[in-house]
Amino acid sequence: MHPAHVPPGFAYLLHRRHEATGADRRTGASGVLVTSDHAGTHLDALCHQAEDLTLHGARRVDPRLQTSAGFADLGIDTVPPLLARGVLIDIAPCDPGRAVPLAELQAKAQAQGVEPRAGDVVLVRTGNGALWNRPAEYLRGAGMAGEVSQWLADLRVRAVGADNVAWDWIEGTDPATGTTLPGHVILLVRSGIHILEHLYLEELTRDNVREFAFICLPLKITGATGSPVRPIAVVTEGGEGTGSVRPAVGGSSPHTD
Amino acid sequence: MHPAHVPPGFAYLLHRRHEATGADRRTGASGVLVTSDHAGTHLDALCHQAEDLTLHGARRVDPRLQTSAGFADLGIDTVPPLLARGVLIDIAPCDPGRAVPLAELQAKAQAQGVEPRAGDVVLVRTGNGALWNRPAEYLRGAGMAGEVSQWLADLRVRAVGADNVAWDWIEGTDPATGTTLPGHVILLVRSGIHILEHLYLEELTRDNVREFAFICLPLKITGATGSPVRPIAVVTEGGEGTGSVRPAVGGSSPHTD
Amino acid sequence: MHPAHVPPGFAYLLHRRHEATGADRRTGASGVLVTSDHAGTHLDALCHQAEDLTLHGARRVDPRLQTSAGFADLGIDTVPPLLARGVLIDIAPCDPGRAVPLAELQAKAQAQGVEPRAGDVVLVRTGNGALWNRPAEYLRGAGMAGEVSQWLADLRVRAVGADNVAWDWIEGTDPATGTTLPGHVILLVRSGIHILEHLYLEELTRDNVREFAFICLPLKITGATGSPVRPIAVVTEGGEGTGSVRPAVGGSSPHTD
Amino acid sequence: MHPAHVPPGFAYLLHRRHEATGADRRTGASGVLVTSDHAGTHLDALCHQAEDLTLHGARRVDPRLQTSAGFADLGIDTVPPLLARGVLIDIAPCDPGRAVPLAELQAKAQAQGVEPRAGDVVLVRTGNGALWNRPAEYLRGAGMAGEVSQWLADLRVRAVGADNVAWDWIEGTDPATGTTLPGHVILLVRSGIHILEHLYLEELTRDNVREFAFICLPLKITGATGSPVRPIAVVTEGGEGTGSVRPAVGGSSPHTD
Repeated sequence: MHPAHVPPGFAYLLHRRHEATGADRRTGASGVLVTSDHAGTHLDALCHQAEDLTLHGARRVDPRLQTSAGFADLGIDTVPPLLARGVLIDIAPCDPGRAVPLAELQAKAQAQGVEPRAGDVVLVRTGNGALWNRPAEYLRGAGMAGEVSQWLADLRVRAVGADNVAWDWIEGTDPATGTTLPGHVILLVRSGIHILEHLYLEELTRDNVREFAFICLPLKITGATGSPVRPIAVVTEGGEGTGSVRPAVGGSSPHTD
Repeated sequence: MHPAHVPPGFAYLLHRRHEATGADRRTGASGVLVTSDHAGTHLDALCHQAEDLTLHGARRVDPRLQTSAGFADLGIDTVPPLLARGVLIDIAPCDPGRAVPLAELQAKAQAQGVEPRAGDVVLVRTGNGALWNRPAEYLRGAGMAGEVSQWLADLRVRAVGADNVAWDWIEGTDPATGTTLPGHVILLVRSGIHILEHLYLEELTRDNVREFAFICLPLKITGATGSPVRPIAVVTEGGEGTGSVRPAVGGSSPHTD
Repeated sequence: MHPAHVPPGFAYLLHRRHEATGADRRTGASGVLVTSDHAGTHLDALCHQAEDLTLHGARRVDPRLQTSAGFADLGIDTVPPLLARGVLIDIAPCDPGRAVPLAELQAKAQAQGVEPRAGDVVLVRTGNGALWNRPAEYLRGAGMAGEVSQWLADLRVRAVGADNVAWDWIEGTDPATGTTLPGHVILLVRSGIHILEHLYLEELTRDNVREFAFICLPLKITGATGSPVRPIAVVTEGGEGTGSVRPAVGGSSPHTD
Repeated sequence: MHPAHVPPGFAYLLHRRHEATGADRRTGASGVLVTSDHAGTHLDALCHQAEDLTLHGARRVDPRLQTSAGFADLGIDTVPPLLARGVLIDIAPCDPGRAVPLAELQAKAQAQGVEPRAGDVVLVRTGNGALWNRPAEYLRGAGMAGEVSQWLADLRVRAVGADNVAWDWIEGTDPATGTTLPGHVILLVRSGIHILEHLYLEELTRDNVREFAFICLPLKITGATGSPVRPIAVVTEGGEGTGSVRPAVGGSSPHTD
């Protein structure tokens, strides 16, 4: 998890338990979840980022928009279910700490026969997802240079995502935007394009899947800046008309960091 | 929300804000979510319920299975994405506090041309969802008699759900199971069939939708007894082959109670 | 609890339990506390209030002072233990919703032989504490007019407190300060005098105690705007020199609202 | 913090902020505290520990006593304010990981002119408190052998405490009790004597204070297994009759781990 979200981090604690009380042969157990809205696999709402204190659509940050209970507009509850064509560009292996340049991403996409189009959800695998259980290494994973985000914004994709902490290269300032995390500015603020973080893309790659039906259903948490999600890739096997689908889970757990 | 889940109830609090610090033109905001795993629209995991201290599949509750951090088996993280045929049986209007008998549900289903089958997700609309913002009234909504759950269990459906607090009639003991909340025993414990609660089914009904592709993606919260979800009904409009889909949101917000 | 502090409100949930695991004859249980820093009996830190975005001592609110993790100065962790002479002025019975005027408070104090002095902790009993378990009534309790706070500020007392939700009269704007909750401005911001809220003063009154050693030990929560506390009044019985003390608990529980 | 209490650990997050809304020149800020009841400096309630599933006073653990919201008896809310003679035994420097034997503690006490008596609060300084900000080292600090706890229990002291994670030596099983953390069994369960953990005793030692008035006011959190506290040592300077007191803070912050 990005250090900015610790605390609160993530905790699940079971307080109601199954136990023999004599009152009823049936018993119920339940727990409390305390979590950052950016823990584990999650989708960023547009209100998550601002440029010069302005959100997407020239909405100026003020106390009516930004409240102690979340945002009055552009919260995750305003995001419709994501059902879109998904494509996966595989750039693994990828050295830690690198800013992945556009030329590299485009070359890989071409070699893999992947052509992102308007409305797509574009996922990039750096291979970093395999390091999930080694947090110090995981956090050093490679990220996208600002020009990658600009290319995808120009293509008018619907959402992007990667198997790392922030999609973006996180170690410096981007010359074009003059900010850190340039994709957060280019995609969320300037273009209204959502970002998925902490994806787990190892299974899709193992199965050599490049194109799929992507489904992601963010929780309707009023005013929240993001939501834990469990996105999936639905893959049609065999030829046209067979209709069989194989759900391929594309999201790692929200609890494991 | 069912009183058993208050506290913790539900809270979303924004602690990181957009504000001018001079450090970066880009700023990020984020919040903390504190919630019962049974707040708002949610899916029950099989570990949520026990009969005679035994979970589904004859798993005996003991400290290795039931821990302070959740369940070592049958947690919500073990539930695959739900992609299934969904059907909606509309029994509204429905007086509060009633136990809906099987004959009534079957008559309505037949009149509406709905025939639940093995593998289906079967949703029942009582009309109670329209009362969501009046919690005292909402909690008094009608629920299913035990025989309804037994019928659906015998049909081997995949999941059931309703626009009320517990699917079940909540006011007494069922003669057949000898427990309260008989559907929780029949479905979750005895049959391994999941339950969706606090659905919002007004839009599907308004659009006269009876059959749809149902999608629900529970969060992979390790060991949790349930997950907030945002299920959807995907409806194919027009004839075969057009392929157009219309996402119809079938889940109310996890935050609004 | 004041509605501004719900959510988060107050929750205590036990997740680690005593149970037979076979590993050790000794077992430990523990829980999680989720609470507003202004739930139940609590002490306000000076950073809790601002006038024209300025804290006590002319500290201007900016992002270095006010952070997502609390305040860099004037947090509750900067408050030394409170050990002071305490005096109790009893104005009960007191109609709900009233702004208690200075003349009334002074008349009662004189009749009761109570003379607040510099450095004192001055407690006022409205009788409202007896309504604690009836929240709707409790919240309508009487509060101090701004002139009461100004008098005590001029006396340079160390802290004030009452058996109500906010010390202050909460229903309108004070003409002198031009703000709501005038005591919060006069005492915390302008004078550096702390406020105790939700005191339970019934026992002190029953025992006819007017003067005592007051002790309050706020938790050192870095940067917090307040702390739950359990203040006590230590009363010397019998004559000078006997040295016996009788702890008289002057604080209601942080959990009961 | 002891790993058993992470998560939930400790978090303080500010969600209500001072900001210009135009509504009122006065503004209020407040936050949420999410914490283990054993984070930072805290007092153990008697319900915190059980021996053979039995609490102090032969109270058998059952679902009426141990609930999802805490304990129906022996919770921290049942502990009166602690006002007692306090004594400090200084055994620093003390190698990490050691079980401090009784002979060593008694020799140091004698050399320092400290004689614990019935009703006292007995504090032991290992010097470990100075390592607070280096958690890995801090957690390896020395602890008391079971015979130390038995000696103090036989003396009928009121409470004990140390500048370490658990008072006890934490690395093995005690031969006398046949359990881990023997002091937790001997003191809390068998003797009804409270334990203070994570004390900060460096200042008392620097000032060469051996005897003092000890004050600790645990929060009245219904049913909780412990409470964060800020204990103090009140030291009378000069001779008898001068009455001057110097609060010497004996507790580290609940937030710093």
